[in-house]
Amino acid sequence: MLGVCYYPEHWPRSLWAHDAQRMAELGIGFARIGEFAWALMEPEPGQFEFGWLDDAIGTLGDAGLKVMLGTPTATPPKWLIDSVPDVLAYDRDGRVRGFGSRRHYCFSSGNYRRESRRITEVLAKRYGGNGTVSMWQTDNEFGCHDTVRSYSPMARDAFRLWLKAKYGDIGALNEAWGNVFWSMLYRSFDEIELPNLTVTEANPSHWLDFYRFSSDQVISFHREQAAIIREHAPDALITHNAMGHFTDYDHFALGAEVDILTWDSYPLGFLSQSRKPDGFKAEYLRQGNPDFAGFHHDLYRGCGKWAVIEQQPGPVNWAPDNPAPLPGMLKLWSLEALAHGAEFTAPFRWRQAPFAQEQNHAGLLRPDDQPAAGYGEIAEVRDVLPALSDAKGEAKVALVFDYDSLWMAEIQPQGSGWHTLDICMEWYAAARSLGLDVDVVAPGRDLSAYDMVLVPALLHVSQGALDALKASGARIVVGPRCGSKDENGNVPEGLAPGRLRELIHLTVARSETVPGHGGNAGVGAWHVWRDEVDTALEPSLQDTEGRPILYQHGRVRMFTALPDDALLRFVVKQAASDAGLEVVDLPEGLRLRTGRGQRFAFNYAKMPRSLPDGVGPADGFTVGGRMVPPGGAAVWEA
Amino acid sequence: MLGVCYYPEHWPRSLWAHDAQRMAELGIGFARIGEFAWALMEPEPGQFEFGWLDDAIGTLGDAGLKVMLGTPTATPPKWLIDSVPDVLAYDRDGRVRGFGSRRHYCFSSGNYRRESRRITEVLAKRYGGNGTVSMWQTDNEFGCHDTVRSYSPMARDAFRLWLKAKYGDIGALNEAWGNVFWSMLYRSFDEIELPNLTVTEANPSHWLDFYRFSSDQVISFHREQAAIIREHAPDALITHNAMGHFTDYDHFALGAEVDILTWDSYPLGFLSQSRKPDGFKAEYLRQGNPDFAGFHHDLYRGCGKWAVIEQQPGPVNWAPDNPAPLPGMLKLWSLEALAHGAEFTAPFRWRQAPFAQEQNHAGLLRPDDQPAAGYGEIAEVRDVLPALSDAKGEAKVALVFDYDSLWMAEIQPQGSGWHTLDICMEWYAAARSLGLDVDVVAPGRDLSAYDMVLVPALLHVSQGALDALKASGARIVVGPRCGSKDENGNVPEGLAPGRLRELIHLTVARSETVPGHGGNAGVGAWHVWRDEVDTALEPSLQDTEGRPILYQHGRVRMFTALPDDALLRFVVKQAASDAGLEVVDLPEGLRLRTGRGQRFAFNYAKMPRSLPDGVGPADGFTVGGRMVPPGGAAVWEA
Amino acid sequence: MLGVCYYPEHWPRSLWAHDAQRMAELGIGFARIGEFAWALMEPEPGQFEFGWLDDAIGTLGDAGLKVMLGTPTATPPKWLIDSVPDVLAYDRDGRVRGFGSRRHYCFSSGNYRRESRRITEVLAKRYGGNGTVSMWQTDNEFGCHDTVRSYSPMARDAFRLWLKAKYGDIGALNEAWGNVFWSMLYRSFDEIELPNLTVTEANPSHWLDFYRFSSDQVISFHREQAAIIREHAPDALITHNAMGHFTDYDHFALGAEVDILTWDSYPLGFLSQSRKPDGFKAEYLRQGNPDFAGFHHDLYRGCGKWAVIEQQPGPVNWAPDNPAPLPGMLKLWSLEALAHGAEFTAPFRWRQAPFAQEQNHAGLLRPDDQPAAGYGEIAEVRDVLPALSDAKGEAKVALVFDYDSLWMAEIQPQGSGWHTLDICMEWYAAARSLGLDVDVVAPGRDLSAYDMVLVPALLHVSQGALDALKASGARIVVGPRCGSKDENGNVPEGLAPGRLRELIHLTVARSETVPGHGGNAGVGAWHVWRDEVDTALEPSLQDTEGRPILYQHGRVRMFTALPDDALLRFVVKQAASDAGLEVVDLPEGLRLRTGRGQRFAFNYAKMPRSLPDGVGPADGFTVGGRMVPPGGAAVWEA
Repeated sequence: MLGVCYYPEHWPRSLWAHDAQRMAELGIGFARIGEFAWALMEPEPGQFEFGWLDDAIGTLGDAGLKVMLGTPTATPPKWLIDSVPDVLAYDRDGRVRGFGSRRHYCFSSGNYRRESRRITEVLAKRYGGNGTVSMWQTDNEFGCHDTVRSYSPMARDAFRLWLKAKYGDIGALNEAWGNVFWSMLYRSFDEIELPNLTVTEANPSHWLDFYRFSSDQVISFHREQAAIIREHAPDALITHNAMGHFTDYDHFALGAEVDILTWDSYPLGFLSQSRKPDGFKAEYLRQGNPDFAGFHHDLYRGCGKWAVIEQQPGPVNWAPDNPAPLPGMLKLWSLEALAHGAEFTAPFRWRQAPFAQEQNHAGLLRPDDQPAAGYGEIAEVRDVLPALSDAKGEAKVALVFDYDSLWMAEIQPQGSGWHTLDICMEWYAAARSLGLDVDVVAPGRDLSAYDMVLVPALLHVSQGALDALKASGARIVVGPRCGSKDENGNVPEGLAPGRLRELIHLTVARSETVPGHGGNAGVGAWHVWRDEVDTALEPSLQDTEGRPILYQHGRVRMFTALPDDALLRFVVKQAASDAGLEVVDLPEGLRLRTGRGQRFAFNYAKMPRSLPDGVGPADGFTVGGRMVPPGGAAVWEA
Repeated sequence: MLGVCYYPEHWPRSLWAHDAQRMAELGIGFARIGEFAWALMEPEPGQFEFGWLDDAIGTLGDAGLKVMLGTPTATPPKWLIDSVPDVLAYDRDGRVRGFGSRRHYCFSSGNYRRESRRITEVLAKRYGGNGTVSMWQTDNEFGCHDTVRSYSPMARDAFRLWLKAKYGDIGALNEAWGNVFWSMLYRSFDEIELPNLTVTEANPSHWLDFYRFSSDQVISFHREQAAIIREHAPDALITHNAMGHFTDYDHFALGAEVDILTWDSYPLGFLSQSRKPDGFKAEYLRQGNPDFAGFHHDLYRGCGKWAVIEQQPGPVNWAPDNPAPLPGMLKLWSLEALAHGAEFTAPFRWRQAPFAQEQNHAGLLRPDDQPAAGYGEIAEVRDVLPALSDAKGEAKVALVFDYDSLWMAEIQPQGSGWHTLDICMEWYAAARSLGLDVDVVAPGRDLSAYDMVLVPALLHVSQGALDALKASGARIVVGPRCGSKDENGNVPEGLAPGRLRELIHLTVARSETVPGHGGNAGVGAWHVWRDEVDTALEPSLQDTEGRPILYQHGRVRMFTALPDDALLRFVVKQAASDAGLEVVDLPEGLRLRTGRGQRFAFNYAKMPRSLPDGVGPADGFTVGGRMVPPGGAAVWEA
Repeated sequence: MLGVCYYPEHWPRSLWAHDAQRMAELGIGFARIGEFAWALMEPEPGQFEFGWLDDAIGTLGDAGLKVMLGTPTATPPKWLIDSVPDVLAYDRDGRVRGFGSRRHYCFSSGNYRRESRRITEVLAKRYGGNGTVSMWQTDNEFGCHDTVRSYSPMARDAFRLWLKAKYGDIGALNEAWGNVFWSMLYRSFDEIELPNLTVTEANPSHWLDFYRFSSDQVISFHREQAAIIREHAPDALITHNAMGHFTDYDHFALGAEVDILTWDSYPLGFLSQSRKPDGFKAEYLRQGNPDFAGFHHDLYRGCGKWAVIEQQPGPVNWAPDNPAPLPGMLKLWSLEALAHGAEFTAPFRWRQAPFAQEQNHAGLLRPDDQPAAGYGEIAEVRDVLPALSDAKGEAKVALVFDYDSLWMAEIQPQGSGWHTLDICMEWYAAARSLGLDVDVVAPGRDLSAYDMVLVPALLHVSQGALDALKASGARIVVGPRCGSKDENGNVPEGLAPGRLRELIHLTVARSETVPGHGGNAGVGAWHVWRDEVDTALEPSLQDTEGRPILYQHGRVRMFTALPDDALLRFVVKQAASDAGLEVVDLPEGLRLRTGRGQRFAFNYAKMPRSLPDGVGPADGFTVGGRMVPPGGAAVWEA
C-alpha cells in the first residue's frame, strides 16, 4: 500500500539499483516514473531513446517493485512546440502561454491531440506487455496552473462545435442563455466567441457552457490516451492524478474513466494558499487544516477507487510560505489516507532534486542522499501495514457536492464572501468535528444507505438529485441558495429553491448578500448570504432582529441564511441526533475515522489530545494510546 | 411623476396588456423601452422587424401610458461587429474590448458613428410622429464599464484632429504641455500617440487633453443622435441617463444638449463600491450613504432639467455585496428625488429578468410575476403625489464642482489619500448635515442668489469662475489645492492659488501630502494635503504643532490643509452663521429638503429619529410625523 | 563640493546669467545639464542645434562654474522612435513600451546602440575639449521605471548570444540549469526563449542568467558611450547616476567602468515606497529612514569614488505620498553625504519646473524664482565646507553585499516575508545604531582591514568570497540561508551552507519559511526563515521551544533563523564587543559618522537628541552642540 514518485533521469545510473533496494526495504511496492520525460524519450523528432527507461524499469522490477508509468504529455519538448503549430494555450488576457515550465498546451489543439496520441501509442506499444509496468498515469495534474480553460482560437472553434452538438439549433441556445437580453442574439454558432475580454461580464450562461466545455475537453483528452493504453496494456490499471482545492473540471466525470483516481495531497501548501483566517493558519501551520486531506479523500472516494499518488513529505516550494511539518505528520497523513480507504499512498518524491523549479521541495531523501525527516516516518507506516485489513468504513453521512453548482456561483458570486468550496468544506468539518464519517457524493447518487444527508451548496437541483433526496429516508440539511438555478444557470421556474420545494414548502422572494457578519442567533451567527422566503412554515431559528434563518419540514431542515461554524455545528448536531447517529464533541484538531478493520484517531492540534470518554479502549492499541501527541495517531481494532 | 423601465421583448406578448394595466394602476405615467433591443429591431443587416415594438408601444399607449424610447446603440448586434470594421474600443492595456456584454463600441469609430446615425434615423422616422412616444433616450449610460476612454487607432486619429483643431500649431501644443521636458517635443500632430502604455507616466497635460477629448467625443456622439431625433420628433423631449459616482465626461456639457438630464440612482450598490470606512458601510448597509442621492440630484439639477430614470428597487447584482434595502427605502428614495426637483422618478425595472447578467437584479415584480418588496412602496408614493406642487426649492448655498479639476487631480494625485469626488461629497454632506439645501454648480455660474459658496476642490480657477466668485456677496469657503493649476494643468503664473489671490492674499510656497492623519486642531484634524503659504494674514486656525490650517480675509475663508469631517463641519457652520443662514444640528442620518411646496425629512439611520426642535409642525403632516422611523420620510407644508 | 542639476532649456535665456551668478554665490561649483535634451540638440534627424547649449555652458563657465554634461539617451525624440525600427523595449507582459515619457528604449536594440553612439560622438566631439565641461554623465538612471529587463525580440536574440558565449555548448547549459527537469532540454541556443509568459514559473537558473544578461547589457551600453567620451575628452571624469533601493543591475560592475559613481538620494520618497511598518513611516515621515542614505553612501563607496548628484530638496512628486522635509533636512542630508565621503553633493533641481511630469517636484527655487525652503539650507552647507578636509573615515566593520544573491532570492523567494535588500539594510542599521561606521563591500573584497564582517544574505558563496572571509581575522556574523546556492542558483554540493562549512561545521538539513513571527528568544525573536541543521556544535541561542537559532564556532557566528531587529542588534553588539570595537547605544534616530577630519552626529528623530556620554566634546563644535535638534547635525573635530 506504499508507493513513491521517482525520477531516475535526474540521477546517475549508478544510484538506481541502490535506490530500488532502499525502496524495497522501506516497504514501497511501486515507483511512479516517466511523466515529465518526453525530451529524454524522444530527444529529436521521431528519434526515440528508451534504453534508459528500459533499464530504469528493469532495475526497479529486479528489486521487486512495480512501476506506474506516466505519459509525458504535460511537458512536450521545445522542438515540438517549435515544429507543430497551434499547440499552445491562450490565457484569459489573450496572451499565448509559452514554453519554459510545464502544461504548455491547449486541450483543444487538434495538433496536440495527435501528438498526445502518438507518444502514448509509442509508449503503450513498448511497455504495454511489460510485467513490471502495472499501472499507467495519463499526463500529470490536468488543470494545474489554471490550464483547464484556454482562450485560444482552437478553443473557440471547438467550443462552437460543442455548442452545436449540445443545442443543435441556434435558437435553442439563444433561449437557454436568455440572449434576448442586451441584444446578444446569435444567428449561427459561428458567431459565438469565447466569453473573455468582453466590455463587462459576459452572459453567465455563456460562461457556464464554456466551463462545462472546458471540463469535457479535459475528460476527452484523457479518454484518448486511456483507449490507446487499454489496447496495448489490457491488464494494467489506468489512473490520473487529481489535485486539492481544485474544481475546474468535473472529477466525477474523470472518475468514471479511470480504474483508480489518484490525488496529490499537500496539506501545508494548501493551508498557506487558503482563505482561512490568520489565527487558524498559525494554529495549524505545520499540520494543515484537519479536514483538508479528509475532505479530498472522501470526495475522490465518491469518484470510485482512489489513492494518494503524491503525499507531501516535508516543506514544499510553491506556497507563499513553506513551513516544515511537525514530526509525525507524514506518518499521520499516510495512515489517514489508508484509513479513508486509499488503495495506496506514495510520498512525492524519492529524493529532493537539487536543481530547477522544485529544488526546495523536500523528498524522502535529501539531495545528498541522506534520509530526510520523512524517511523514518514512512518506515513507521510500513510497520503498521500488517495490522490493516481491506475492510471498508461505512459512513452514515453523505455530503452532496456538485461541480456545476460551484461553477455557477464562481461565475456569479453575488456576494464577496461566498466561496462554494470553502462552504462545502465547512459543512464537512462540522460533521467530522462530531466524530462522524462522511461520504462526499455526486448529486443523483443513491442515498438510501445514509442516515443524514448534507446539501450545503447545490445551486442547481437536477431531477435526479431531487429523486435521490426524496427516496432517501435520511435527515436532510440544506444550505441557503440551494435550488436557486436551473440547468442553464438561470432563475428556476417558480423561483428558488426550485425543485427542492417538493421537500420543503417555501419560496425565496429575494436574496441579499452582506460583507461578513449578518446577524446573531444565540448559538451562532449568519453571514454573507440571506434568503427572504414566503412560507406557511414557522421558522425554527431566527436572529436577534427576528430574521428567520432556519426552517424545518419533517426530516428536512433548510437554512435561509449562511451559518457560521458554530451555528452550522449546532444544526448538524441536532439533525444527526434526530437521525440516531452517535455524535461526540471532539476536542479541536482531533479527528476519528473507521476503516480497514480499525478505528483511527488523528491529532492535528499543536497540543496533545486525549481520546474523549467512550471513544477507544483503555489499552491494547495497534498504534499509540489514549493520549495522542501533536501530529500523532492512535489506532485500535474496530 | 412616476415612470418605469420595461423590457417587453423579455416577456411573452400575452403579458403585455396586463403589465400596462398594472402600471397605470400603480400611477406610472410612462415606460422606458427599447434601449437594448437592436438585435430585435434589425435581426439581419438591413432587415427590420418593428411589429413587436409597434405593438408594445400601442399596448402601453392604450393603457394611457406614454413611452420613452431608447436608441439601441449601447448594444450593437453581433452581425454588425462582424461585418463593420473598426467598431470596437481598445482598453488601456491595448486589448480589443469584444462582443458579449454591452457598450462594445468606440466613440471615435467613424464606422460606428455612421451605424449609430443610421439606426437612429430609422427609429426616429418610424416613431417620431407617434403620439405615445413623448421622450427619447440616446444610447444608455455613456461611459459605463469604463468606456469613455478608448485607446484604439480610431481614437488616436481623432485625438490628433481634436488637438489640431484646438492648438492649430504644433508649437502651441508643445508650449502648453511643456514638452521641452524630457524631449517630448513634437514636430507635427501626426506624431502624437495616446498617453497609455508609456514607460512611466505620460505628460499630465497630454492626459488632460485626452480626457477632455474623450469627454467631447461622448457629447458629439449624443449630439448626432439628438439632431436626427429632433428632426423627426420636434416635440419630444430628449434625454440621456447619467450615472452616480461617475465623472469621466463633463455632465454640464451634456446637460446643455438634452431637454432633461436623467440619472440612474443605486444608493446601496454605490455604497458597497465606495471608499467609505467599514463602520460607515455597516451603519448604512441597507439605506445607502445619506448624501449619495442628494448630491447627485443637486449636481444634475445644476445641469438643467433633470429626473431619475433608474431607481434601485431592491437588491442589485453588480456590487461586491448586494443587500436588500430596509423597508421603506424605495419610497424614501423616490420622494427624495421629487423633493430635490426631479421631473419624475422611475424604478428599474418593472419585472426581474430570470436570465442573463442581471438575473439577480430586483424589479417591482418578481420573475414569477408576484409583487416584490418595492411594489407596495411605489403605490405609497403614488398616493403622496397629489400633495406635491411644482414649487421649486431655493437653496442659499452653492457648491462649485468642476470636471476639469477632477481630471487634473486624478491624473496627478500627488497624495494617496486625495480623491476629489469624495472631498466634494464631504463638503456637501457638511452643509446638508446642518439642514442646508445646496445647489451644485459649474464654475462660472452666476452666484448672486447664494449666501454661502463652497469651493472644495477647484484646482483650475478660470477667469469666469473668479469673476462669479468676486461678483457674489456670499461667504466663501475654499479648500486647499484650489487654484493650483492653470488651464493646461500646469503650475499657474505666480503659483497657487493663482487667480484666487484676488480673493485672499496668500501664496502657496509648497504643498505636502501625508498618508492619512496630518495634525490635530481641537475641533477636528487635517489629513492628506497641506499647503505652506506666504501671507501677511494671521491664521484663523492652527494645528497643535502650530501649522496654519485656515485663513480668513473678509468674507473668504481658505483652508490650507484638507479638513476632516469634524473640522470641515465646524468651519462651514461658522461661515453659514456669518452668512445669516439658519443652521440646525441634524441627528446622524437625518436630512431635510424644501421643495414642491413641502418640507421633507428623510431618515437614513437604522434608528428612529425625532425632528429637532424648531423643525416641522407639532402635527398635521402630509406624510408621517415628528418621529421618523428608519428608512422613513416625513412631509409637511412649507 | 556642491553642484546642482539645471535645465537651462526650460527657462528663457534672460534668466541664465542671473541663475549662474546665484549658483556661484551659493557656493555651487558645477551644474549638471543636458541629459534629457536630445530633441533640442537634434530637432530634426541629422540637423543639430547647439547654439543654446554653447551659450548655456558659456554662461555657466563665465560665472566660474564647471559643467557636467549628460548624454541625452534616456529620452530619444519622437522622430527617432518613428524612423528607427526596433528601438522600444517590451514589458514582461509582452507589450511594447511606447514613447511619451522617458527611458523608452531597449538595451538590446542594435539600432538604438548605434543611435546612442552617434549622438554621444556628436556631443563628445563638440564639447570634449571644452574647458568648462569637466564631467560627463552617461544617460540617466539606468533601469528606472523597471527598464533593465526588456522582453523584446532583440533582447531574446541578444540573450541567446550571451548564453552561447557563456556556455559554448548547449549541453553545458542544460546541465547548469538542470533542464532534465520537466523536459526543458534544449537542442540549440536558438531554441531558448525569454523566461516570461510561461505557464508557471520558468526555471530559476533561466531567470538568473536572464537577470545577469540584462545587467551586463546595461554595463555594455554605458561602456560604449564612455569609450567615445574618453576618446574626445580624455581629462574629463565620467559618471552615471545610480538610484536608491534599486538592484536590477550590478553596481559593482558599473563602478568599475566609471570615474565617479554618483547616485540620486530621495530619502522621503523612498520611505513612502518602502515596506517599513506604518508606525515607522509616521515617525520618520519628514526625515526619512535614518539608514537609507547612509546605506547607499556606503554601498556606492564600495563601488569606487562616489558622490550624490541628485539630492531631494523638498517634496517630490513620484511617491505615493510626498511630505515636506523637516526644516534642516536638506542640510543634514548634504552634510551626511560629505561625512560619508562623497566627492560632492548636488540638489535636484535648481528651479522647480511649472509643467510636465515633475511640476510638483521641489527645487532650490520655486517656479516664481523665489527661494524655496531648501535654498537657505544649501547656503548653510556652503558655510560649513571650509571646515571639512579630505581625510577619509576608516570603517572597521564590513557588510558583504551581493547582487547575484539578491537576484537568486527574488527569483525564488520561498517565503513571503523574505526581502533581501531589506534584510541587508536591517543588518546595516543594527551596526549603525551602535555607533559603528560600515563599509558595504562586494564579496571577495579584501577584508583584512576590518574587525567585524557582517554577511547577512550571501546566498551564493564564491571561492573568492570564502577566501576573503577565511583570510580575515575579523569576527564574522552570518545570516541564515547563506551558502544555500551554487553559482547556477542550485542547491550546492553537500547542501547549504556550501563553502561556508569551511568556517563553521554544520549542514542545513532543511529550511522552512513562516508568515511573520516564528519564535521568541528572550532578547528578541526570529521570523520568516529557519534552517534545521546537523552539527556537533551546541547552539548559542535557542527559542523558547528549543529550536536553535545561533551557532558559534571560533570567531564565526551563524544564525539559523532570521533575526528580528532586537535579536540582530544583540548578536551584532556581542560580536562587536568580542572584536574590541567601541559601541554606543545611540538614541533612536541618532547616527554618528567619522570623516573629513570631523566627527558628525545626525538627528533623524522628531525630538531633540543629546549626544550620549562619551561622544563628542563639551563645547567647541564646528556645527551645533551636544543637543541636536530634530533634523539637525552636530560636527566636531575628530
